[in-house]
Amino acid sequence: MVNPYDKANELAQVLKESSEFSELKNLHDQVNQDEVAKRMLDNFRNVQLELQQKQMQGEQITEEEIQQAQQQFELVQQHEVISKLMEAEQRMSQLITDINKAITQPLEELYGAGE
Amino acid sequence: MVNPYDKANELAQVLKESSEFSELKNLHDQVNQDEVAKRMLDNFRNVQLELQQKQMQGEQITEEEIQQAQQQFELVQQHEVISKLMEAEQRMSQLITDINKAITQPLEELYGAGE
Ligand SMILES: [Ca+2]
Ligand SMILES: [Ca+2]
Repeated sequence: MVNPYDKANELAQVLKESSEFSELKNLHDQVNQDEVAKRMLDNFRNVQLELQQKQMQGEQITEEEIQQAQQQFELVQQHEVISKLMEAEQRMSQLITDINKAITQPLEELYGAGE
Repeated sequence: MVNPYDKANELAQVLKESSEFSELKNLHDQVNQDEVAKRMLDNFRNVQLELQQKQMQGEQITEEEIQQAQQQFELVQQHEVISKLMEAEQRMSQLITDINKAITQPLEELYGAGE
């Protein structure tokens, strides 16, 4: 019987060697080596984070804040490398989500059925 | 290059065949075939869920509610099969957590370093 931990480590290794991961890493490095791009992305992420925290704490988010976030999003979208990085992050995030679904599927079956 | 999805499906299969999963499934089936045990566990879970929802909504949880939950926990702990099932769930949960850590570790390295 194969040890689940061994198989998980194999998967981790495959992920690390995947095109999805190396694209993400390349774009991440490119942004980090470009001071302007890095500041732009950091600003965007900080604003996103602040809004998320407000939302979680049930605080009101103003029209103005939503507009500002939207404008910042459009700004970073126009930066080619940042926009590509965000797309690569989306693909990686989807990949992790799909992997988690595959892993937890037997549990979902167990807990979804026969209740 | 191995496809991450193929490797994830392999891992899912290994998990499904693991002793951790088959123990969990056996105990789960045992409890579900025992009406008294099933009702006891359902009650316990409903109370836990209610308290969690209250907590998430920022509602006050009373001394009495905490005591009741504690008493119910002690009750289910005394039921051998339920107690074993809860232990098996804990082990499975730990296994899934460890697997997720292994999978996301390259991403943590990428996002933790060089900022
Ligand atoms: Ca684009
Ligand atoms: Ca026990």
